[in-house]
Amino acid sequence: MILERLRRLRASLRRRKIDALLVTEPGNRRYLSGYSAGDHGIGESSGVLLIPASGDPYLLTDSRFKLQADDETSGFTIKLYRKGLFPLLKQLLPDLGIHRLAFESHYFLHASVEKLTGILAKVVVELVPTTGIIERMRAVKSEEEIGLIKQSVLLNERVFQLVYSTIEPGMTEIEIALALELTMRELGAEGASFETIVAFGTNAARPHAVPTDRILASGDIVLVDMGLVLKGYCSDMTRTFIAGKPGDTYLERVRVVRKAQLAGVEAIRAGVRCCDVDRAARSIIENAGYGRFFGHGLGHGVGLAVHEAPGVSPRVRKKLRTGMVVTVEPGIYLPEWGGIRLENMVVVRETGCEVLNEDFTGLDI
Amino acid sequence: MILERLRRLRASLRRRKIDALLVTEPGNRRYLSGYSAGDHGIGESSGVLLIPASGDPYLLTDSRFKLQADDETSGFTIKLYRKGLFPLLKQLLPDLGIHRLAFESHYFLHASVEKLTGILAKVVVELVPTTGIIERMRAVKSEEEIGLIKQSVLLNERVFQLVYSTIEPGMTEIEIALALELTMRELGAEGASFETIVAFGTNAARPHAVPTDRILASGDIVLVDMGLVLKGYCSDMTRTFIAGKPGDTYLERVRVVRKAQLAGVEAIRAGVRCCDVDRAARSIIENAGYGRFFGHGLGHGVGLAVHEAPGVSPRVRKKLRTGMVVTVEPGIYLPEWGGIRLENMVVVRETGCEVLNEDFTGLDI
Repeated sequence: MILERLRRLRASLRRRKIDALLVTEPGNRRYLSGYSAGDHGIGESSGVLLIPASGDPYLLTDSRFKLQADDETSGFTIKLYRKGLFPLLKQLLPDLGIHRLAFESHYFLHASVEKLTGILAKVVVELVPTTGIIERMRAVKSEEEIGLIKQSVLLNERVFQLVYSTIEPGMTEIEIALALELTMRELGAEGASFETIVAFGTNAARPHAVPTDRILASGDIVLVDMGLVLKGYCSDMTRTFIAGKPGDTYLERVRVVRKAQLAGVEAIRAGVRCCDVDRAARSIIENAGYGRFFGHGLGHGVGLAVHEAPGVSPRVRKKLRTGMVVTVEPGIYLPEWGGIRLENMVVVRETGCEVLNEDFTGLDI
Repeated sequence: MILERLRRLRASLRRRKIDALLVTEPGNRRYLSGYSAGDHGIGESSGVLLIPASGDPYLLTDSRFKLQADDETSGFTIKLYRKGLFPLLKQLLPDLGIHRLAFESHYFLHASVEKLTGILAKVVVELVPTTGIIERMRAVKSEEEIGLIKQSVLLNERVFQLVYSTIEPGMTEIEIALALELTMRELGAEGASFETIVAFGTNAARPHAVPTDRILASGDIVLVDMGLVLKGYCSDMTRTFIAGKPGDTYLERVRVVRKAQLAGVEAIRAGVRCCDVDRAARSIIENAGYGRFFGHGLGHGVGLAVHEAPGVSPRVRKKLRTGMVVTVEPGIYLPEWGGIRLENMVVVRETGCEVLNEDFTGLDI
């Protein structure tokens, strides 16, 4: 899998007359090498790949990561830097005959480019900003990757169901979020793919709510947005339901959101523009009078990262391709009342799409 | 506290003839506004501050974060963008008479600078890269901040002790790490300040080990590196001990590491260069013959971020200042054998330093 990815990347570099690409983005690094270390923020890298257009690839890291790098990669020459990456590059690039060095402009700090430019000027290396070369490869998943994503989705649902069955008035948002994250790891996930959201009542009006010690009361809205990482691949799911019996307002609104979700799913197939999928769902919400309460895009790609290409939003005119995996997550958020979001993941196919989720909690009520 | 910080920042901007600073780094954003949202990676910002050198400050974000922004800030004008930050800036900056706009070069992607430069060229705004203006302010803590950090350290130790008392052969690294993270949150922490490290035996030779399902055997090394966030402020502590009775090799080595730590602590006072503190500790390890097994710096600042200025390493020639809070964490790592790291946090004072930790597990044996 990795060899084929490297082969395609090298061909792409040669077409662009680039001698080598410096891979800094952690998901891209893992995609091309298997090296799974994460960065502690963009300022504290756990290593970079140097992929020459011709010749063998390198993983440049420091001694803290040597054992992991040895274990997880094969075919990579591992070089350790003691005084930082840039001095090592200054020494290595001329040896490898690299003159045009591409970097990932979308995952390289402005300050770092300035510094590297200064250092490499002395060895006559030209820096070439690129964006999205590997992300575009990653956006289309192989069947093997889709299988792994499906496993991640199903485990996520199992975790949700285990905890869902215990939810009752008196519990706090934090308590439920913790139970979800604990259960994820007990069942073998590497961890959560993002910080689990559990939001009751008016807190659910915040699409990115952080769990609080609010106590669940009977009749409250409960919004759970959760995902996990399994064998590197992420899942992402949102369910909204009522602790108790839903009232008429809730029923009316949740049906609008679900109808929008189904319209989005219905619109998805290879060749359709992302903005048109967003539109299909959004127009349902607009027609029901909630347009201004749906302030985010309909969805996003999911893979090694929980948010990756393609974005499914009004601004994205790119077309969906077979093998892409995206979320479909319309929502409406009313500050004084609460919010509802329903999120599934789907695989784009030639003539439609395949919903990866099997859980129906709160969807068709 | 925030008003005084803003006042100092504005004075600093005026000295540099900068009309306004765009604050993108999440810790800096929180430091200057109280707004505590984190970014989901550098590519997915939860908002930026626009701090004019004269005039009131702005928080620019999107609708998802409106309620949180309203709740957490005061004195900030909150503006929501629908089509992204850059179009809003293009409209807002001329209205505010801002011509020289500084940005945080160390927390701004190269690709974003390119894009923003293009957009702002049309409204004749000059972009000025800056680094570390706010980080330098943050590095020196007020007594109020030191009090909060001390609370974070003490809670972290309480969590450690609760779980430490349950550790016994048969448990896995993951199990202990989960217990630590669960206990943190049960006792009121916002969360872990980094992914908790629990490493047994040879796994402890990886300074950044990720917990595995390795089972603890009697006589194994146990290394626990953990931290939490309390009221925004981080703690960071490492303890290493043996499950059972330590052998002579372990005793010899742990005493070297502890001696190095004490030498580091001894060397710390206002006016001493960071590299000299590192040297004081490192020379103990080198003299004991383990120099090449200590591959990282001695420590780092801790505050709103778990890793912040100043770095205490052989490369940092800056001087410590009163009120800085840093870790002192020497270690030795032998791949075939295991690793030992001991980490405490200290506050730099005029004539010495104050160790914030009260826990002595595994230190003086």
